[in-house]
Amino acid sequence: MDFAKTKELFHLPEGVIYLDGNSLGPLPKAAAGRVAQTLEAEWGEMLIKGWNDAGWMALPGRIGDRIGRLIGAESGHVMTGDTLSIKVWQALAAALALNPGRKVILSDTGNFPSDIYMAEGLTTLLGQGYEVRTVAPEDVAGALSGDIAVLMLTEVDYRTGRMHDMAALTKAAHAHGIVTVWDLAHSAGAIEVDLAGAGADFAVGCTYKYLNGGPGAPAFIYVAPRHAEAAKPALSGWLGHEAPFAFDLDYRPAPGVARMRVGTPPIVQLAALEAAMDAWDGVEMADVRAASMRLTDLFIAEVEASCPTLTLASPRDATRRGSQVSFHHPHGYAVMQALIARGVIGDFRAPDILRFGFTPLYIGEQEVRAAAAILADILATGAWDAPQFHARKAVT
Amino acid sequence: MDFAKTKELFHLPEGVIYLDGNSLGPLPKAAAGRVAQTLEAEWGEMLIKGWNDAGWMALPGRIGDRIGRLIGAESGHVMTGDTLSIKVWQALAAALALNPGRKVILSDTGNFPSDIYMAEGLTTLLGQGYEVRTVAPEDVAGALSGDIAVLMLTEVDYRTGRMHDMAALTKAAHAHGIVTVWDLAHSAGAIEVDLAGAGADFAVGCTYKYLNGGPGAPAFIYVAPRHAEAAKPALSGWLGHEAPFAFDLDYRPAPGVARMRVGTPPIVQLAALEAAMDAWDGVEMADVRAASMRLTDLFIAEVEASCPTLTLASPRDATRRGSQVSFHHPHGYAVMQALIARGVIGDFRAPDILRFGFTPLYIGEQEVRAAAAILADILATGAWDAPQFHARKAVT
Repeated sequence: MDFAKTKELFHLPEGVIYLDGNSLGPLPKAAAGRVAQTLEAEWGEMLIKGWNDAGWMALPGRIGDRIGRLIGAESGHVMTGDTLSIKVWQALAAALALNPGRKVILSDTGNFPSDIYMAEGLTTLLGQGYEVRTVAPEDVAGALSGDIAVLMLTEVDYRTGRMHDMAALTKAAHAHGIVTVWDLAHSAGAIEVDLAGAGADFAVGCTYKYLNGGPGAPAFIYVAPRHAEAAKPALSGWLGHEAPFAFDLDYRPAPGVARMRVGTPPIVQLAALEAAMDAWDGVEMADVRAASMRLTDLFIAEVEASCPTLTLASPRDATRRGSQVSFHHPHGYAVMQALIARGVIGDFRAPDILRFGFTPLYIGEQEVRAAAAILADILATGAWDAPQFHARKAVT
Repeated sequence: MDFAKTKELFHLPEGVIYLDGNSLGPLPKAAAGRVAQTLEAEWGEMLIKGWNDAGWMALPGRIGDRIGRLIGAESGHVMTGDTLSIKVWQALAAALALNPGRKVILSDTGNFPSDIYMAEGLTTLLGQGYEVRTVAPEDVAGALSGDIAVLMLTEVDYRTGRMHDMAALTKAAHAHGIVTVWDLAHSAGAIEVDLAGAGADFAVGCTYKYLNGGPGAPAFIYVAPRHAEAAKPALSGWLGHEAPFAFDLDYRPAPGVARMRVGTPPIVQLAALEAAMDAWDGVEMADVRAASMRLTDLFIAEVEASCPTLTLASPRDATRRGSQVSFHHPHGYAVMQALIARGVIGDFRAPDILRFGFTPLYIGEQEVRAAAAILADILATGAWDAPQFHARKAVT
């Protein structure tokens, strides 16, 4: 796999080493033209007719299938739309309904907080003893039991990159009669995912990280074929109706994952995402994963050789680590600001984590070595300990 | 008010008379440039830093305030995001929680189906006797009673343009202890709305119709100041958290309407919407409404004088009608397709309605007279009764 060719597909600013594609992927060069076409040739010229003539209505499912290929989903079982938090909620509501009589959603304390918030919003709404139970990530397997309705996990920990074993945990969950919801926010486009092979029930994810769909790009949801006609969307919007334009007052869910559509899809955002998906054509996740493991191993080696004040927060074993590397530093926020000022963009995650994402589509060994060297310099010189690097910004 | 100037702000294709701005507003000329800037100068160059440096995180509230001015909302109490169906659901869930002990959502059979679907999705989820009750639009006032928790109405009927009296129904609802949720899909940018004056509790709406935000532009939600700190978002996502970037595992709602934020906002879509909102600068809704009433009165007069096979479906009294005019025709679908083929774009709503939206920002008397003349010609010649005009498209 020649990643020099995929790198050419992205706009990367001069003087920047971008190690934050796990937070927001960079601009695919094709996106600006595709979006301009959607605005000018489609919205501008076709007006309302764009829904038919430009194929807008089919766009969420068409892109869903392209994402599906990267995560081992069966064709026709992934739908894009809304935000990840909304899709988490839909998956949880549908999963709970598939497991009547049980009232516990099990998750772990390393999960992304919004997933927990959405789950708690749902159980609070349901009342009647529904609850969210969280355990430490390493205690999940032992906490599976017959009273649990749904196991909701993010496969790759957003802070540390620690990976859950999707296949093993799904199998163990099923043995207890538990329905699984996997959040692939840091998996899709980052690691090899085999939803069908693992027997996952539901999966959700976002497209603005490793898939490079742009700020606020829509989320996606997967429903296993065996649940496709039984799953209830709960957020039963008109575009998930069997016949939206019949304007019936009675809701009848559309066949399969299309019922997970809710409202009018964000066509401009989807146009950017579709252009981003072009970069994945011909790319195999096995190649991406192999390159990612080489890059993250290299970064750990370089940093540990030159930055004695940093402590690895990620698993040392690349097979148990997503496509990111995190280090603890007591002044992590200031160190990251100093790094950004030197053109190395990673991000900070409270309380003390420096997080670096590695994205073989546009990042190679040269960038990894250069970033490690700049990090070492900032730490060795104490350059990070300046007032401007301690001042907190709204978004970290 | 000189609408010749606002007309200049929109791209309107040659040879088209666009009477479907109530379904999808046309492209504001400024949108393409604004979106390109967001993609290239912001996403492309700032990458993740755009959330701070380009002000992305504040965009949903900033645009919310600009919409708020057009609907009589107090400053700081309107938030954009998600889709209208999601915002309907959030408003309903919050409204029900403000009225514990009552379990009925009252709506009318003229409401947009998705609002009913979302309400039923919510009451089905809640179980325990929660229900959606619908009555004919004219029977709403008489159906208000002490067992109703929430009155959910769309102010302007999407098919006919018939308007509910928001102030009177809100007052009557409050007299019964009922919390109100108003859907402004066909009101915002179309008619004068005075949410604060009417004492509305919640309101929601979309921005791709009269506000011209583009296909799939985000929705908005209003929460009255008196409820702002008590309303629960139910869909409790991280961006509605008091401190999203603290990544706490406990959800604490942000102050006021900001808690109605859920996931990552669609920045590209919001950029187009922000450009669209520029067209409203200096525009007073009283002037828009006066012009709209003149245009719709004129269209009715012209059509009734020349199209004997059409029956008016909209209220004849302009003060009881939104910014649209609808007619019944037994072959409404084919007639509309024939009209579109002649460059007059309106739309069809099942079972037999020809619907025409009038948008003074870019439509004037000349277009109204020309559209009526073409409609008369199509009906008089029977040109609509051709096979290609009967073939149904996916989206109507």
